[in-house]
Amino acid sequence: MYGLHNRRVPRVSQDQLDARRKEILTGARTCFARHGYEGATVRRLEEEIGLSRGAIFHHFRDKDSLFLAVAEDDAATMVATVAQHGLVQVMRDLLSEASASGTGEPDVTGWLGSQLEVSRRLRTDPEFAKRWAARAEAITAATRERLQRQLEAGVLRDDVPIATLAQFLELAYDGLVLHLATGRPVEDLEAVLSLVEAAVRKK
Amino acid sequence: MYGLHNRRVPRVSQDQLDARRKEILTGARTCFARHGYEGATVRRLEEEIGLSRGAIFHHFRDKDSLFLAVAEDDAATMVATVAQHGLVQVMRDLLSEASASGTGEPDVTGWLGSQLEVSRRLRTDPEFAKRWAARAEAITAATRERLQRQLEAGVLRDDVPIATLAQFLELAYDGLVLHLATGRPVEDLEAVLSLVEAAVRKK
Repeated sequence: MYGLHNRRVPRVSQDQLDARRKEILTGARTCFARHGYEGATVRRLEEEIGLSRGAIFHHFRDKDSLFLAVAEDDAATMVATVAQHGLVQVMRDLLSEASASGTGEPDVTGWLGSQLEVSRRLRTDPEFAKRWAARAEAITAATRERLQRQLEAGVLRDDVPIATLAQFLELAYDGLVLHLATGRPVEDLEAVLSLVEAAVRKK
Repeated sequence: MYGLHNRRVPRVSQDQLDARRKEILTGARTCFARHGYEGATVRRLEEEIGLSRGAIFHHFRDKDSLFLAVAEDDAATMVATVAQHGLVQVMRDLLSEASASGTGEPDVTGWLGSQLEVSRRLRTDPEFAKRWAARAEAITAATRERLQRQLEAGVLRDDVPIATLAQFLELAYDGLVLHLATGRPVEDLEAVLSLVEAAVRKK
C-alpha cells in the first residue's frame, strides 16, 4: 500500500502541474500574439495568464523558455494534424476558425501570432534558429509522409517530385499564416485553398 | 536670368536631398532587417547608415517615419515590377537574389526583412495598419490589372475568377517572403514557383 500510495501522490501532482502548465501556455500564447515577443512584458504576461510572475516562472525558467514552449506546443499540434489530415486541412481549419471572428477565436489568433513571432526570431536570433530547426524538420517530415501515402493511394499527381509538392504546400501554408496574422480579409481564401489542393492532385 | 538662377539652386539642392534620403533608407532597411523594429536602436541606425542621428532625423521625423518610408519605398518598387512583369517574376527575382547568397545580397535581405517587419507591425499596431492599407491595395490592384491583361492575351486560365488567381499569387508571394526571410533553404523553390505559375496559366 505504501508503494502504491507513494506512486499515486506524485501522479495527481503531475496532472495538476500539467494543467497549470497548459493554462500558462494558453495565456502566454495570446500575450505573445498580441504584443510580440519584446512587447510581452512580464507584467502583461501576468495579466493575460492571471498568475503572478512567481507562479509563472516556477514552471518556465524565463520568458525565452516560455516562448519556446508555446511554439513547440504549436508545432506538435501541427505535426499531429498534418499526419492525420494533411497540410491543406490544417489550412482549412485555420481559415474557418479565423473566419469565425469576433466569437472566441483568441486561440487561433494566438497560434498565428506565435507562428509569426517564431519567423521573426528565426531571422533575428541565430541561437533560436538552431533550437527551432528540429521542430521545423518534424513538420516537413510529416507532410512528406502524408504525400507519400496519397501518392500510393493514387490521388496525388505523379509528374512532380513529392519534395517539390511538399514545399509548394508549405509555401501556401506560410503565405496563409502571414495573411491571417496580419488581419487581412478572408473572403476569397476558401477558393484559393481549393486551387492549392487542385495543384497537387492527380488530374 | 534672376528667375532662372533662383529656380536652379533649389533644384540642385533637391537632388542632393534625394540622394541623402536614399542613402538613409538603404542603411535603415538593412538595420531594420537585421535587428527588427525595436532592436534597431538609434545608435545602430547611426552605425549602419554612417550618419549622425542629427543628420538622419533632419530627413525623417522619427524612427517610425523612417520605417514607414522604407516600407513605402519597397511597396512602390514592387508595384512597378508587378505592373511590368507580374508577381511570379517578382518572386523569381527575389529567389535568384537570395540564391546568390554570400555575395552582396544585403538589399534583398533588407527588403525581405522589412516586409516581415511590416507584417508584424500590421498585427501589433492598429495605427500603422491604417496607414499601410493604401500601399497594400496598390500592390493588389497592380496584380489584378496584370492578370486582366494576361487573360485578354489568352495565356491565363479562364475558369477561375481573376480575384481568386490574384489572391493565390499573393498567398504564394507571402509564403516566399516568410520562407526566405527566415533563412530556410532555397533548393527546390525554383520548381515550386513553376508549379505556382502553371496553376494560373491556361492548360
